[in-house]
Amino acid sequence: MHTLLILSRHAGAYRELVEAARLPDLRIVTASTASDVVAAAAEADLVLGEPSLIREVLPRLSRLHWVQATWAGVEPLLDPALRRDYVLTNARGVFGSLMSEYVFGYLLAHERKIFEKRASQLAGKWDPAHPGTLRGKRIGLLGVGSIGAALARTAKHFGMHVRGYTRASRDCSEVDEYFHGDRAAFAADLDYLVSIVPNTAATVRLVDATLLAALPPRAIFVNPGRGNVVDEAALADALQSGRLAGAVLDVFLQEPLPPDHVFWRTPNLLITSHTAAISFPKDIAPVFIANYRRLIAGEPLQYRVDFEAGY
Amino acid sequence: MHTLLILSRHAGAYRELVEAARLPDLRIVTASTASDVVAAAAEADLVLGEPSLIREVLPRLSRLHWVQATWAGVEPLLDPALRRDYVLTNARGVFGSLMSEYVFGYLLAHERKIFEKRASQLAGKWDPAHPGTLRGKRIGLLGVGSIGAALARTAKHFGMHVRGYTRASRDCSEVDEYFHGDRAAFAADLDYLVSIVPNTAATVRLVDATLLAALPPRAIFVNPGRGNVVDEAALADALQSGRLAGAVLDVFLQEPLPPDHVFWRTPNLLITSHTAAISFPKDIAPVFIANYRRLIAGEPLQYRVDFEAGY
Repeated sequence: MHTLLILSRHAGAYRELVEAARLPDLRIVTASTASDVVAAAAEADLVLGEPSLIREVLPRLSRLHWVQATWAGVEPLLDPALRRDYVLTNARGVFGSLMSEYVFGYLLAHERKIFEKRASQLAGKWDPAHPGTLRGKRIGLLGVGSIGAALARTAKHFGMHVRGYTRASRDCSEVDEYFHGDRAAFAADLDYLVSIVPNTAATVRLVDATLLAALPPRAIFVNPGRGNVVDEAALADALQSGRLAGAVLDVFLQEPLPPDHVFWRTPNLLITSHTAAISFPKDIAPVFIANYRRLIAGEPLQYRVDFEAGY
Repeated sequence: MHTLLILSRHAGAYRELVEAARLPDLRIVTASTASDVVAAAAEADLVLGEPSLIREVLPRLSRLHWVQATWAGVEPLLDPALRRDYVLTNARGVFGSLMSEYVFGYLLAHERKIFEKRASQLAGKWDPAHPGTLRGKRIGLLGVGSIGAALARTAKHFGMHVRGYTRASRDCSEVDEYFHGDRAAFAADLDYLVSIVPNTAATVRLVDATLLAALPPRAIFVNPGRGNVVDEAALADALQSGRLAGAVLDVFLQEPLPPDHVFWRTPNLLITSHTAAISFPKDIAPVFIANYRRLIAGEPLQYRVDFEAGY
């Protein structure tokens, strides 16, 4: 018999979805008060929930075997001071379509001049200015994991040319051209640069002044991935000086973005509030359910996190 | 030997593209002055150009055999008072991807709350309100020709359920459910209604108070097709009363939209200025070139317009 502790702001929804799967040999506990959590933590060998909530309880999970995170990012659990004597799996494979909607929503808004057309309308002006098109444009994906592959599929659907920047992998057939190491060659002549690399030591400030300077002035940078990938001062500078046409940012070094941050007054920058890909319980519960079935069948779990690599 | 008269605002671009194809037995004439046109019209058996410009010259084309229109809409040539003793082909198959970018640009702007997020940003507000998603939403296509099929493909790419409303055809495999005649059943429970039917006697005011009343209040109506499909007063009324969540219109009964038109002050309405699908010479020239090759091979031309049916 396994005991699952659900630690989530959406614990009720997760409980209902997991119960509906009628998994064998599984007892579910949720915890609404702090003392509940202490009692439940002593029993649970499995945990499903948000990494930030799990972190608080980690020392008390005396029987812990496996944690299924409901997020893609598991930074709160990667602190080297924390225990690593358990299997950690994260949420993957479910964010691709949401990320695609975010990225291509903003790419199409740019090409179709959606803000400009709205401004013309508000001015009572019939505005026959021609829109652009994604067809034939060049998109560069910084990172080609499952999210990058989803973006590549949507880019090909819209007739774009797709570049991928990876350490070594070349396994997505929708990527037309792969680059490794040479960021300037990757960035040259891109219309759009999208960062979806995970937060690791190797990706800190990958989008710096050098990479930004290698982009053509017409390029748009989109970051629905991780905030620490970006040198924020260099990006603000590139936008202010007009060396970069625009940026769309969902993630930041500090969130919520501080009220005095330069980004609030940077031109040609669109800000969203870490909502590009939401963990909807109906998407994430099936990841836990499939992994639980693997667990009891003695099979390796999917989406296992390497604590050293950080993803 | 054939003589082609090009009558287009982009005559230079068309001439260049057609010349580059090195078509056999073809002489090209363009006309920059009115007297040029008179002289050229007497010689030309083929015409490539905008229907509105061709209409003016139609009586003078004494050797006319075939007109390739650069637009999808050929209304200017369908006036029953005009001659019909020639083959008329229009532009098709090239607008699907542009229409897809227009429609899904606005659908994603709605789901991702792109205008609301921008308003939060301008107010300096971190706005974690969850976006929606296209996945699982229901789209209804009023008309499933080549443009409808392109929209259906994009809708399936984003995981939507696709309904098609046609007179009888059921030949697009990306449409999940077909409807004929029963507009209320077609409209029930749609999230999005998109009209891409051509302008014919049978489509006038197809989107009227009855159809609009059959949509759920959350629905968005998008019209990148033909203006006369819509009962504009009924649509303004549905939007003003909140019985319809929103509309995106690219075409109108009168264009440019008159300054005193109710749509300029209708809430939850986005107006664009007949720019959803532009006839780019690089897209349209290949349609003429392919048809010319069919002509000299004695094969039937593609995209022939039926003067009676109107498309």
